[in-house]
Amino acid sequence: MLKIIAQSLGSVLLIASFPSFASEPALVDRTITLKNISDAEQAWCNALIDISSVNTKEGQAAAKKLAEKVIDSAYGYQFGTVAFKPTLTVNPQTFRTSRDGALAYFVGGDASFPKDTGFALKDWTKCEVTNAAVLLLGNYANSMGKVKMTDKKGGVTTVDKTWGWVKDDKGQMRIVLHHSSLEFAGQ
Amino acid sequence: MLKIIAQSLGSVLLIASFPSFASEPALVDRTITLKNISDAEQAWCNALIDISSVNTKEGQAAAKKLAEKVIDSAYGYQFGTVAFKPTLTVNPQTFRTSRDGALAYFVGGDASFPKDTGFALKDWTKCEVTNAAVLLLGNYANSMGKVKMTDKKGGVTTVDKTWGWVKDDKGQMRIVLHHSSLEFAGQ
Amino acid sequence: MLKIIAQSLGSVLLIASFPSFASEPALVDRTITLKNISDAEQAWCNALIDISSVNTKEGQAAAKKLAEKVIDSAYGYQFGTVAFKPTLTVNPQTFRTSRDGALAYFVGGDASFPKDTGFALKDWTKCEVTNAAVLLLGNYANSMGKVKMTDKKGGVTTVDKTWGWVKDDKGQMRIVLHHSSLEFAGQ
Amino acid sequence: MLKIIAQSLGSVLLIASFPSFASEPALVDRTITLKNISDAEQAWCNALIDISSVNTKEGQAAAKKLAEKVIDSAYGYQFGTVAFKPTLTVNPQTFRTSRDGALAYFVGGDASFPKDTGFALKDWTKCEVTNAAVLLLGNYANSMGKVKMTDKKGGVTTVDKTWGWVKDDKGQMRIVLHHSSLEFAGQ
Repeated sequence: MLKIIAQSLGSVLLIASFPSFASEPALVDRTITLKNISDAEQAWCNALIDISSVNTKEGQAAAKKLAEKVIDSAYGYQFGTVAFKPTLTVNPQTFRTSRDGALAYFVGGDASFPKDTGFALKDWTKCEVTNAAVLLLGNYANSMGKVKMTDKKGGVTTVDKTWGWVKDDKGQMRIVLHHSSLEFAGQ
Repeated sequence: MLKIIAQSLGSVLLIASFPSFASEPALVDRTITLKNISDAEQAWCNALIDISSVNTKEGQAAAKKLAEKVIDSAYGYQFGTVAFKPTLTVNPQTFRTSRDGALAYFVGGDASFPKDTGFALKDWTKCEVTNAAVLLLGNYANSMGKVKMTDKKGGVTTVDKTWGWVKDDKGQMRIVLHHSSLEFAGQ
Repeated sequence: MLKIIAQSLGSVLLIASFPSFASEPALVDRTITLKNISDAEQAWCNALIDISSVNTKEGQAAAKKLAEKVIDSAYGYQFGTVAFKPTLTVNPQTFRTSRDGALAYFVGGDASFPKDTGFALKDWTKCEVTNAAVLLLGNYANSMGKVKMTDKKGGVTTVDKTWGWVKDDKGQMRIVLHHSSLEFAGQ
Repeated sequence: MLKIIAQSLGSVLLIASFPSFASEPALVDRTITLKNISDAEQAWCNALIDISSVNTKEGQAAAKKLAEKVIDSAYGYQFGTVAFKPTLTVNPQTFRTSRDGALAYFVGGDASFPKDTGFALKDWTKCEVTNAAVLLLGNYANSMGKVKMTDKKGGVTTVDKTWGWVKDDKGQMRIVLHHSSLEFAGQ
């Protein structure tokens, strides 16, 4: 009975001093912030330019090696798949749900994806993201907007892009969804 | 020592009969299933056809009224915005982050969105979804795939589409992300 | 090649001016912050004191009415159930997975819960929360710590408490999990 | 008009055969199911019994080694902290937000936690979980109920227990919240 317990233990309860915690509680924070997103978007842009640059200076094999590193650190293929619709793919290989498909899209040279010439090899020198909408849904977030890429000849390609983000167990942002499309040219 | 506790408290503990619960625990289930997604996708398709049909039979005003009902029940504008990139929009109104912008896209007739002629008014009679990738991330999910729409003359439009889904507080699936794009026509 | 695309589609692409967005994207933010949690915890404490105060001044019926309002605005019974283990309940009614069970615990007077005398009616005048750990997991969060309640005679009850929080569709914090227990008195 | 688009781009669109996907989309499923929970709960029970058994047969050092393995595979300390309120801890060490604190609780022998005698060393031979409420909130879930543990002399300890679960990046269930308390003995 608590009455009995209270009799035998109760004095302890009453004299128990209130515990002193550190001023801040121990904290786990797996939420995604706007800054996490803009940093990760800019990292994607920088990686695109880096792959182009390595391709120019060291060739496709080196560019491919870098692209693998980028994919393995920035995408979430280790979760099983990524919902990836790149800008310039056609049927029946529109969607690149495997790591191989993503790699082929970025650097080409894969006989299984014969139409891929390597989007990241197009001499990109500048890449800017402007978000139209951001959804912070917890440990998942979406960003949607325009990405404007400039090549070394000054040619500009602007795409409509959606990214879906998770934070992995180490707090690293990873792309689990990527839908990119050329702007609709009008009617 | 627990032994000592057991001695002082244990008689109570020992005679405590194990509580009998109903065979199943009280349950809250806010997760999204594959079936939730395919049902909601088909509901989107059906709504598109319904709006077309109402437009033909009763005119644009009735179609608009139905479209409002569809948007209010199937999209998540009440959360503040929806990340919506419709198939056929152009700058500077590519993204329809407001309910008004979504409505104008589907049924036109809004002077603020002068290029919108009403995507849902194009006499659609058939609409099929084939998912390429689905991400069940908890109370958020993504689906990405092809949506093939047929009009009454047999014309077919196939788009690459991504939807982001949440379950609202009542368990209703809602679109919080929608990126649709014409297939890339190749090179 | 993108060059070839640029030739066929590019005139439009090249003249497309980059869209000007508002400086900030349209935003949905459903994440839970530390401040959301401390505000909601303090609101729980304040409600406890308010119910005690109303009980003293206006009687149990008025206290019950207020308690209903508190439960309906601060707990998540509308989602189907709340995982609620109050401090002072015994078998077979330890867990209060229904709204009725929660109400009976706080204000008593329910023949279906004959052992409930009304925890919120114990003349509480002060209530303080000190968190030991907080988990911000996205649109769900946990806080665990000590809650120290003082009654009008200066009696102090300190409990170990865990709360699980969601933000509902309107952004309101709601308790979906509540486990409270007397401090273990030692051995 | 889509008709005009169809005229300019349409030959490609119209001849595009509908892509044939595998019958099922590529899938990521990070949701937590009722079965995931009951399996993980039973695994926790089994680990408790195993540690007791190893302690009896091989001594505390071996039990400690096993407990470390259990903690590292079943709890989420790698995320920064676990919100852990064990059954039999007292101020100022009620909460075990560090891995060291959890280990000391289960197997004792840590001078920094002088009151810990090792809960898992109490010769447990049987452990049963009965859930009263389960909340499936996506990639997070809560279970709350009774855990009834029997030692080799037939002594029974029943506790009220709440667990908070996440699936880690590899799909492994991990405890990020654990609140355990002796049953309230009544008044």
